[in-house]
Amino acid sequence: MSTTTGWQSTDQTSNAMSRVAIERRELRSDDIAVRIDYCGVCHSDLHRIHGMLGEKDLVPGHEFTGVVTAIGSDVTKFAVGDAVAVGTIIDSCGECPMCRLGQENFCLKGATTTYGGKENLKGGYSRDYVLKEKFAFPLPEGLDPVSAGPLMCAGISVWEPMRAAGVGPGTRMAVAGLGGLGHLAVKLGVALGAEVTVLSRTADKTDDALALGAKDLLVTTDDAAMAAAMGRFDYIIDTIAADHELSPLLRLLWVDGTLCVLGNPLMTGPRLLELGYGRKKLTSSGTGGLPQTAQLLQFCADHGIAPQVEVLPSAQVKTALDRLAVGDVRYRFVLDMSDLDQAPAIA
Amino acid sequence: MSTTTGWQSTDQTSNAMSRVAIERRELRSDDIAVRIDYCGVCHSDLHRIHGMLGEKDLVPGHEFTGVVTAIGSDVTKFAVGDAVAVGTIIDSCGECPMCRLGQENFCLKGATTTYGGKENLKGGYSRDYVLKEKFAFPLPEGLDPVSAGPLMCAGISVWEPMRAAGVGPGTRMAVAGLGGLGHLAVKLGVALGAEVTVLSRTADKTDDALALGAKDLLVTTDDAAMAAAMGRFDYIIDTIAADHELSPLLRLLWVDGTLCVLGNPLMTGPRLLELGYGRKKLTSSGTGGLPQTAQLLQFCADHGIAPQVEVLPSAQVKTALDRLAVGDVRYRFVLDMSDLDQAPAIA
Repeated sequence: MSTTTGWQSTDQTSNAMSRVAIERRELRSDDIAVRIDYCGVCHSDLHRIHGMLGEKDLVPGHEFTGVVTAIGSDVTKFAVGDAVAVGTIIDSCGECPMCRLGQENFCLKGATTTYGGKENLKGGYSRDYVLKEKFAFPLPEGLDPVSAGPLMCAGISVWEPMRAAGVGPGTRMAVAGLGGLGHLAVKLGVALGAEVTVLSRTADKTDDALALGAKDLLVTTDDAAMAAAMGRFDYIIDTIAADHELSPLLRLLWVDGTLCVLGNPLMTGPRLLELGYGRKKLTSSGTGGLPQTAQLLQFCADHGIAPQVEVLPSAQVKTALDRLAVGDVRYRFVLDMSDLDQAPAIA
Repeated sequence: MSTTTGWQSTDQTSNAMSRVAIERRELRSDDIAVRIDYCGVCHSDLHRIHGMLGEKDLVPGHEFTGVVTAIGSDVTKFAVGDAVAVGTIIDSCGECPMCRLGQENFCLKGATTTYGGKENLKGGYSRDYVLKEKFAFPLPEGLDPVSAGPLMCAGISVWEPMRAAGVGPGTRMAVAGLGGLGHLAVKLGVALGAEVTVLSRTADKTDDALALGAKDLLVTTDDAAMAAAMGRFDYIIDTIAADHELSPLLRLLWVDGTLCVLGNPLMTGPRLLELGYGRKKLTSSGTGGLPQTAQLLQFCADHGIAPQVEVLPSAQVKTALDRLAVGDVRYRFVLDMSDLDQAPAIA
């Protein structure tokens, strides 16, 4: 066992976090130890701190980068000092049809999540982590460890369904919600050759949308603009974390179009007749498997795609969560974990 | 104006029908008049008689065959005496993007339905009908007018989504509910080269399923069999008219699989996380456009596919509806309308 330090939630009604000691397991032969340098703050961290999955005393964090500090005797993919990235799952059965397909995220026995979940692990809002090398990714040259972490959850969460849907040249794609997932969906959609429109409640983010490569921004509270856009898109990726109506988005789809809802998996679908009129498809997805994640990292390195992040010292984790809760971030907070090496200001 | 005779619903709480006189419009230049010989009884007739769409005094019927008895001055596709088939819609704007795509069923201005709907027309449970020639189909040689009617609703309702989903060789397809739509989905799926399994609450229909060409029948109330079949299908077409849970069907889908729910469009979808786990798609559809309908008729003629029907004199329409309501039909009732030529037994 080894001991590290991290930030743990204190109750389900606030974003208060306390600095705690965390034990990590002894290195197994196929394990690596990682010094976490940067960890992204995901909206699902907020959902889960507030009890969405019935968990408590969470050390969140499932999109981080760092450096390998030790390796088990059978490790072949990493050496001490290698730059590494870790995402939302750190183990799976490896034998079921989903795992054999490279969809470890859908492991039929249930993947082991980076924090909470069936093993109740402490996550990446901490200074050190231990995991099986199979579930860690070498950070490709060209990706900045400061900003790359969010690719491991926000990025792969949009990448995998976009690839499954065949997004590419000719796709008329819309992205609802310009946050952590949304801004990466725009960048990746544009890089894949799609024509991308941002859907937002106000025009505030128009300049940002255009800067990210979008063709335009459609204001969803503008009834006339929404009516004019009926049937305009083949594929809509919905990253809105708050409860919201799906019907207005479905009306924007063309025949055989797909609405992929990612931001709020607890919502219920609409009446089926809303899908039937135009033979529309409703789908969702959950992060990604190992092959797709490796492909995403390489694609981003090749295309110079990086999350747009705001870096805060990890001691400001509550500020990050509070601001994220009101959408005050463009577009992802990343915590710099190096401050955990210092003695706490208040013991 | 001309006058004909038909069967009209009397209230929303029973299947009682009364024989009524019906006026048909004067032939327009692009109209044809049809003597209806056979009209199928669709489960949506039952739903609508009972007020699903808020209609009353309905003469249902939207899948019929007959013979052209008169043509307008500009009609080019039909001559008097031609065998003809008519389905669920008999007009649309013709100019919107949906109509231009040949998806008149999704006309953005709202298609004119064969009965009820925005024009409150009297439908095919009658002896004569008048419609624009564009929306009538020549009955291909090789199709029997006695049994072909149900292709025009039950058949096209499964054909169009199956084609859109690319059902063919290699598709592992399941059909939930072996009724009017379901038995045609099996026949068409087999003819398209898919491997088809029937999903049913009991094993009663196993012999029928195999006779229709299915590979097997999976009993959905057998928990062990359902667990063993998890992830077995790429495409499930759900034709069950009663309310039912979608979750057990979704669990049968493999990654990226599609559940197409047709039998009960008023049901609400499941929580999105049930779709996300395996990136599954939920969809629905509503009958079909003109090109697909013509294609279906020719496909059935070429492959010797006909609905399996039980023919009753139209005066037994209440019996047909009552038996349909309890699933007592293998697999579609067809009303023989010729008895309407006789004076009613009871005036």
